[in-house]
Amino acid sequence: MLVFVPVAIVLRVRPQLGNETALFIVSCLAIVPLAGWMGRATEELAEHLGHGIGGLLNATLGNAAELIIGVMALSKGLTGVVKASITGSIIGNILLVMGVSIVGGGVKFREQRFNQTAARASATTLTLAAIALAIPTVFHVTAAAYSGGWSQATEQKLSLAIAVVLFVTYACVLGFELITHKQLYANESQDGGEARPEAGGWSVSKSLLILTVATSLVAMMSEFLVGAVEAARSVLGLTEVFVGVIVIAVIGNAAEHSTAVMMAMKNKMGLSLGIAVGSSLQIALFVAPVLVFYSYLIGQPMHLEFTLPEVVAVIVAVHLIYQISGDGETNWLEGVQLLSVYLILGILFFYLPEGAQAG
Amino acid sequence: MLVFVPVAIVLRVRPQLGNETALFIVSCLAIVPLAGWMGRATEELAEHLGHGIGGLLNATLGNAAELIIGVMALSKGLTGVVKASITGSIIGNILLVMGVSIVGGGVKFREQRFNQTAARASATTLTLAAIALAIPTVFHVTAAAYSGGWSQATEQKLSLAIAVVLFVTYACVLGFELITHKQLYANESQDGGEARPEAGGWSVSKSLLILTVATSLVAMMSEFLVGAVEAARSVLGLTEVFVGVIVIAVIGNAAEHSTAVMMAMKNKMGLSLGIAVGSSLQIALFVAPVLVFYSYLIGQPMHLEFTLPEVVAVIVAVHLIYQISGDGETNWLEGVQLLSVYLILGILFFYLPEGAQAG
Amino acid sequence: MLVFVPVAIVLRVRPQLGNETALFIVSCLAIVPLAGWMGRATEELAEHLGHGIGGLLNATLGNAAELIIGVMALSKGLTGVVKASITGSIIGNILLVMGVSIVGGGVKFREQRFNQTAARASATTLTLAAIALAIPTVFHVTAAAYSGGWSQATEQKLSLAIAVVLFVTYACVLGFELITHKQLYANESQDGGEARPEAGGWSVSKSLLILTVATSLVAMMSEFLVGAVEAARSVLGLTEVFVGVIVIAVIGNAAEHSTAVMMAMKNKMGLSLGIAVGSSLQIALFVAPVLVFYSYLIGQPMHLEFTLPEVVAVIVAVHLIYQISGDGETNWLEGVQLLSVYLILGILFFYLPEGAQAG
Repeated sequence: MLVFVPVAIVLRVRPQLGNETALFIVSCLAIVPLAGWMGRATEELAEHLGHGIGGLLNATLGNAAELIIGVMALSKGLTGVVKASITGSIIGNILLVMGVSIVGGGVKFREQRFNQTAARASATTLTLAAIALAIPTVFHVTAAAYSGGWSQATEQKLSLAIAVVLFVTYACVLGFELITHKQLYANESQDGGEARPEAGGWSVSKSLLILTVATSLVAMMSEFLVGAVEAARSVLGLTEVFVGVIVIAVIGNAAEHSTAVMMAMKNKMGLSLGIAVGSSLQIALFVAPVLVFYSYLIGQPMHLEFTLPEVVAVIVAVHLIYQISGDGETNWLEGVQLLSVYLILGILFFYLPEGAQAG
Repeated sequence: MLVFVPVAIVLRVRPQLGNETALFIVSCLAIVPLAGWMGRATEELAEHLGHGIGGLLNATLGNAAELIIGVMALSKGLTGVVKASITGSIIGNILLVMGVSIVGGGVKFREQRFNQTAARASATTLTLAAIALAIPTVFHVTAAAYSGGWSQATEQKLSLAIAVVLFVTYACVLGFELITHKQLYANESQDGGEARPEAGGWSVSKSLLILTVATSLVAMMSEFLVGAVEAARSVLGLTEVFVGVIVIAVIGNAAEHSTAVMMAMKNKMGLSLGIAVGSSLQIALFVAPVLVFYSYLIGQPMHLEFTLPEVVAVIVAVHLIYQISGDGETNWLEGVQLLSVYLILGILFFYLPEGAQAG
Repeated sequence: MLVFVPVAIVLRVRPQLGNETALFIVSCLAIVPLAGWMGRATEELAEHLGHGIGGLLNATLGNAAELIIGVMALSKGLTGVVKASITGSIIGNILLVMGVSIVGGGVKFREQRFNQTAARASATTLTLAAIALAIPTVFHVTAAAYSGGWSQATEQKLSLAIAVVLFVTYACVLGFELITHKQLYANESQDGGEARPEAGGWSVSKSLLILTVATSLVAMMSEFLVGAVEAARSVLGLTEVFVGVIVIAVIGNAAEHSTAVMMAMKNKMGLSLGIAVGSSLQIALFVAPVLVFYSYLIGQPMHLEFTLPEVVAVIVAVHLIYQISGDGETNWLEGVQLLSVYLILGILFFYLPEGAQAG
């Protein structure tokens, strides 16, 4: 799929060859393998750096592709797309990636077990994130009912404060996962002798080189994608929210997707959950706050107020993964349940009229 | 109580003898024993057909009385009553039937245990159903805030798509319960040597005859009931939602009620849960979609948008049964908690003004 | 800290010495030790009266300080403050007190275990309470959308009915905790030979004397506090809701706070949970209904309709404590999660404009 990278460059350099829609689709497809290479290079580096620092590296660069797309979109003032892609990454990892993983593993194994305490810790942190992301909307609805009481500035201060709390909480979660309770997470990966199958023994310099090249290309593709999104949307008849929640989220998380499903089919459901739920966590507690901080840096403050359907989608997804993973075992029906809800939410976002997306 | 059947017929044939309100009450009462006979005949048939097909029969005809009332009410355009009776059946089975069962069993037994995985699977499917039934309301609230963005047609397409997802999910649930994980459900019923007490050895032809007669009479009574509901409501001062959520739901589920309580008092809490929660599931994932499909067939499309109190009631009930049954044991206090919430919701629907019921 | 009592009296008697804001702050601070003495005297008395009656005494007088503040504020017509302090006490005990306790215990002990059934019973009762307190708001939102359908009188009848249900449920909970399932709660306190550290062997008469004196002084301080709250609010720039939810709630629960943290650090997490969650329960199921009944007695009916942020805060807090305590074990990260959410809610209430607080 790396072939899409040069195709996208050609399409951009010679606009007469194609159109914006084609550029949008091709740069979307080009990001998929690049995000995979970034992820692998990050993990190889992490391997060399040892558990603690390596874990930290994974925890910060694991969703670098989403972060880059977000930064590019923010620079163009597309806050609606940025927020929708945050929502979409959270629910996509929980519902789509975990749904496929649990079904994939569940058709081979009657029940799949994993560490319950680790699963509950992640699920509770996700609950906290869902609460945090819902609060600005609660504020807006309440404050907007009273003329004079509400102002854009207060809403931004509230979002900034929440972003800080989320960021600090993420530091605590990392302390829990990498230091004080690391054995909850370590056990399973040592089971099979190796953590993940793709850890193939790259040298540090090779990892760094690939990471640098892949990151630069992802940045380039993201710029193409973001530049073409408005034109492509109107041609394809998709709303801003649908593009963010479904399209960009699926692309940005394609790498996690394939790894999580592979782990599940090898009956390593704990690792599968760790990748997918961990990615959702990272988006909510690290990528979202960093994007808020960045938006202040470039002087175009983004607040964290989401639309009602987005808030509902996140709460619903987080609650469901808690119910399903909280008992430390999964079966195929639970995967179907996650996928059904993803489908229902996808239908909702598809039918939602364009005007309804603004906060 | 079968005596109410001829009384209802007389009241209908000779309107000068009584009034609409009497007809409404009598046909309500007549449905109770008829639904019981339908249920028993279905189970007897299922017994003859063996686990797989028999389970399927129970899963489709188990709530035939509610289905018939719904079809009759839809034909008269009473979509408000139909939707309210869906809500009411879901919360009635979970809160009222399970509440009485758990208290009934709990006063005799200190703790009652049952298969946790089966209970959690049902509870999660109910959560999915609650989400699905809340989405059209989320859509409506969001879309209605933007003039021009929203249309009745989109709302109906959304509801139809959700109905299809629910229906397919129900097929998966049946596959889980009857095929891949049937032993989770089978164990307890084999404990006492017999599944349910009323399985009394009817022949296939006797079962079929009783099923046919009872079904015809339920259809007749439902028609009386639906025809008289408008007049009776205004005389009794009850709102459409209260009649649907409380009155019709209690009547339609009376048979489940007595069986579930009896099982609980024999310390077969797993069966009791299976009957009551299973009935809620069937209403949400089978009866509701089928009524939506039927409404399209007769050219009067019904959407699945419920009022805010109905959505809240379903979410609340589903969440509570998950909390209570998720640990695989119950005690009397948990029954009291379910009943308290049922009472609070009943009070809410009682005081809700008439105008507030429309979607 | 008892020195604040005479200071408050002096400030009140000689208004020229200070101002309303100082009086507000000093009487707040004076209540903290007095509430502690009331609590200790109640427990000493309970010790003498034996498990059953003693438990009942604790269950009714345990939050006497909050009750007195509430009665004083109701008499001055400050229903907004009263309701906010109910919300604040519930979330303060769950999020702040339990958060600090779990972190405090968690830094010393890797995992802390406690009786899961008892924890779940409390969490489910809290869920019920959260539902009950959300219903009047659901009613208001639904009914208010239809002109003519809604009236203040219906809203008060609804609240009164809910208060009665909560009160009766509380009686059932006491029956469960003190009679039918008392061993679930008793085990841990017998572990160390003594129930709580402060049980120091006061005589009945000493306990009664201290209880009477402390109660009278709390009543006096509450009157000062309530009298000065309006003036102090505008000077300090705090909204009514913030004062109720954060300031008064923290003061009224300071005694529970120190005891719960001490128990947690002695690895008696079950007792710690019992104190903090039990206090929330008592506020919701006993203090709130009693205040509603009292408001009728004095002819100024208070309804139980809370603002949207209050309803969200209670639901969120209750849900989180269920997730965290439902598995019968805690670790420090769970305490951080509770505190993060408390912080986020505190930020929300701080930024909420004044106009937005009315129901």
